[in-house]
Amino acid sequence: MPAFARNQWYVAAYGHEVGRELIARTVLGEPIAFYRTEDAAAEVVALADRCVHRRFPLSQSRLDGDTVVCGYHGFTYDRTGTCVFVPGQKRIPRTARVTSYPVVEQDSFVWVWIGDPALADPAAVPRAPHLSDPAWVSVSGMEPIDCDYGLLVDNLLDLSHETYLHGGYIGTPEVAETPITTEVDEGAGIVRVSRHMDDAACPPFYARSTGIEGRITRWQDIEYHAPCLYLLHSRVAPVGVLPNPDGTDPHAFHTEITYAITPSAPGKVYDFWAVSRDFAKDDPEVTTFLRDFNHKVVMQDVDALNILQKALDTEPEGYQELSINIDTGGLAARRILARLAEAGAKPAEQVS
Amino acid sequence: MPAFARNQWYVAAYGHEVGRELIARTVLGEPIAFYRTEDAAAEVVALADRCVHRRFPLSQSRLDGDTVVCGYHGFTYDRTGTCVFVPGQKRIPRTARVTSYPVVEQDSFVWVWIGDPALADPAAVPRAPHLSDPAWVSVSGMEPIDCDYGLLVDNLLDLSHETYLHGGYIGTPEVAETPITTEVDEGAGIVRVSRHMDDAACPPFYARSTGIEGRITRWQDIEYHAPCLYLLHSRVAPVGVLPNPDGTDPHAFHTEITYAITPSAPGKVYDFWAVSRDFAKDDPEVTTFLRDFNHKVVMQDVDALNILQKALDTEPEGYQELSINIDTGGLAARRILARLAEAGAKPAEQVS
Amino acid sequence: MPAFARNQWYVAAYGHEVGRELIARTVLGEPIAFYRTEDAAAEVVALADRCVHRRFPLSQSRLDGDTVVCGYHGFTYDRTGTCVFVPGQKRIPRTARVTSYPVVEQDSFVWVWIGDPALADPAAVPRAPHLSDPAWVSVSGMEPIDCDYGLLVDNLLDLSHETYLHGGYIGTPEVAETPITTEVDEGAGIVRVSRHMDDAACPPFYARSTGIEGRITRWQDIEYHAPCLYLLHSRVAPVGVLPNPDGTDPHAFHTEITYAITPSAPGKVYDFWAVSRDFAKDDPEVTTFLRDFNHKVVMQDVDALNILQKALDTEPEGYQELSINIDTGGLAARRILARLAEAGAKPAEQVS
Repeated sequence: MPAFARNQWYVAAYGHEVGRELIARTVLGEPIAFYRTEDAAAEVVALADRCVHRRFPLSQSRLDGDTVVCGYHGFTYDRTGTCVFVPGQKRIPRTARVTSYPVVEQDSFVWVWIGDPALADPAAVPRAPHLSDPAWVSVSGMEPIDCDYGLLVDNLLDLSHETYLHGGYIGTPEVAETPITTEVDEGAGIVRVSRHMDDAACPPFYARSTGIEGRITRWQDIEYHAPCLYLLHSRVAPVGVLPNPDGTDPHAFHTEITYAITPSAPGKVYDFWAVSRDFAKDDPEVTTFLRDFNHKVVMQDVDALNILQKALDTEPEGYQELSINIDTGGLAARRILARLAEAGAKPAEQVS
Repeated sequence: MPAFARNQWYVAAYGHEVGRELIARTVLGEPIAFYRTEDAAAEVVALADRCVHRRFPLSQSRLDGDTVVCGYHGFTYDRTGTCVFVPGQKRIPRTARVTSYPVVEQDSFVWVWIGDPALADPAAVPRAPHLSDPAWVSVSGMEPIDCDYGLLVDNLLDLSHETYLHGGYIGTPEVAETPITTEVDEGAGIVRVSRHMDDAACPPFYARSTGIEGRITRWQDIEYHAPCLYLLHSRVAPVGVLPNPDGTDPHAFHTEITYAITPSAPGKVYDFWAVSRDFAKDDPEVTTFLRDFNHKVVMQDVDALNILQKALDTEPEGYQELSINIDTGGLAARRILARLAEAGAKPAEQVS
Repeated sequence: MPAFARNQWYVAAYGHEVGRELIARTVLGEPIAFYRTEDAAAEVVALADRCVHRRFPLSQSRLDGDTVVCGYHGFTYDRTGTCVFVPGQKRIPRTARVTSYPVVEQDSFVWVWIGDPALADPAAVPRAPHLSDPAWVSVSGMEPIDCDYGLLVDNLLDLSHETYLHGGYIGTPEVAETPITTEVDEGAGIVRVSRHMDDAACPPFYARSTGIEGRITRWQDIEYHAPCLYLLHSRVAPVGVLPNPDGTDPHAFHTEITYAITPSAPGKVYDFWAVSRDFAKDDPEVTTFLRDFNHKVVMQDVDALNILQKALDTEPEGYQELSINIDTGGLAARRILARLAEAGAKPAEQVS
């Protein structure tokens, strides 16, 4: 399984999860406490979740204005992580400070940077603009999974599993049968996997949300920005309906399926998921249906990956896998992740 | 504790447990999926419980006829373990195959062979014919125990524990007081432990099933076929009633107590148990009583062995035991198991 | 975290917990079964909780008079740990004996000695006489915590945490604000930490038990007898009320807060706690209030220490702490504990 790529942006939370109560997330093995400042900017602050005094988790603390007061002995930190109060004495040790992590809030996500802060470029945060664009309506959630994050990358880059694991939900025989095309941009760390089905059964996910009766033309275009952001551009239309020559596509239904894949610790991953649509935007029944139905689909993956990780944990070292054409995208992703991890493991001066 | 003896037959299930739904058992650390073919032969198939593609457990799959369709990406295997379908392409890699284990179904048990298949001799499966002989009526069950299988072998070869752990059920003072005789057939791997009580109290197990009032002559003749099969030939009769000189024994009550001791993994064992009787065969109350009562007795062992294993897990390496006469059979069993494990650990060509 | 100091007395139980049913406690990693003899002396017996035969826990046994009958095969031990019966034979092996630990019952506690019995001096058991003195009324309890015992020592020697962890119960701002004085008697292994607040808010713990309205003079005088016994001499009075020049102190309220800190195993500690008062002795409502209220306070510590240990378990080796003035007592305690552990690790002849 791939190591962690440190010098990268990762989604730690949805923006709406972070407020005036501290929340704890562990990203790449680093425990972090998040909160939002009370000023007008309402910025998200990310501090190392361990008091310098006795390592008590700051996420168990309370906020006093924009400072964090440790719940054990009262060591108090400002938003930069600098300690501004200790009990029983006036002098504050100069080394009393916790790490403050670079944060970017964008496209409904809170992104955090784990590696060398000098390398943290906000402009490098990958985009999922549909998540906060009024032209789309989104439903979303997050599930922690007790598996290596590589298993979730594998899962999402090989959609042939929809036919078997998600049959009756989003899978039909055509998904497994239709060959894929794969493009890899090694430099940008992007893997694209496309599967265009000209004439396929319409699974309940789309039949009930779009109202299409009968067979469909179904396109799945994956765009994986390693390590964290996964976009699935999904297009369905009545069979034979194609985009216009000018690129407009008024008779198709478009869905953006977004995942953020955030390694929490070895054998643990946060699975952020969202479904955004450009149709039936005012129909709350479709919203409710897609939220509940996609949650079921996600839980099918969660259950399967929990089972798979347990199985792998009992396998002898160096167990074999057998890869075929459908795995082309996943194998490319593993190569990129290994390269990013290696780069992130180097001292900063060598990386930049 | 003894290592695993690989080149041996082990009970993996009762025949009635295996049907058209895959079931999972782990034997000697190897995960195996079992099912029964749909043809007239209705044979039991045992396949390695890991898909060659990404190691997903095949026991989470569904059957399509006599093939197994992996529940993750649809890799499909026939009963020999050969892959006959993969998604997205026509060509099936030649190495796409999972292990198919030799199986023998006999005496109500499904036996599986873990070691070198070239050495798997169906004629070597030890017999417990009373389990499927209409001259006997049997009740049975299986309990997994979180203990080394050696602890269950110890337990069953030293029945003095009946007096203390199973007092008020099957134990009376005479069991612990009466010396045993032990015979060991090292070559055949059989240990025999006998305890003949001429005049003993009748425990509830026999009082309520046979109707005997008053004291009994009680014989316990153990026959342990290492590593898996344990038979306890039990004979009770009103005190002083002995078999006829010609060997017939019409005035006694005979019970065959069968155990199959199958190591699942280090620290885990399957405890298959059965009680077969040659009396009151048409009395359903006796059947129900023996099933419920013996289940309670088995659970007393299960609880004690779970406790014992937890205690041993906290003992320092090389902890001491103190053995006395009652342990003669158990110590002989350990020697045989160690020898069988050593033999099974050698390459096949040296073993045969 | 400090190692275990073996040649020391530890509290294993309250006297009222030990009777004619065996109870199990693990002290310094050693499993011990306790019971009380049925003769007039009703002495507490402490035997190693492992039968010599197959290591079954004797705490799962039953008493027969003052002997312990192993619940598995009936090996029977007298109060000295000598085996007096084995099943199936008359001869008892000479080596059939379990360790009998020195025990002292004093001040409501059962103290046990784990190290070299030749060094066990009953006169060296530290005293908490208020626990059985009719001049005081006590409430008490015990909570196991899943943390290293050093975390509980840290907790109790630095009461500034009362302000934050126990705010609204026993903590007020003055506890954290008021500097401490620390005295260390290295030879006797005693750490004293004092905090005298001249003018402090009265927390609910004292307001509701003493009836004081308004601010108080509050003295906290800790006396920690490493490794096990912790005494907090607490004095509260209306603000400005001091003891008389002759040492009498009739207008103050005295509370003795006792803890026994007994390492059970690595990462596990028994937290024995008691609150003894010299006021409102005949008022059962105060008794009930202090029992319930202090239990809540103890559980705040238990929850925090469980959380803290889990956090530390994920920290990399050699994680840093930052100590300030409030930690003076705790750091002294760690030094003494390290010295006692080192002494206890040596062979007895070198220690004495």
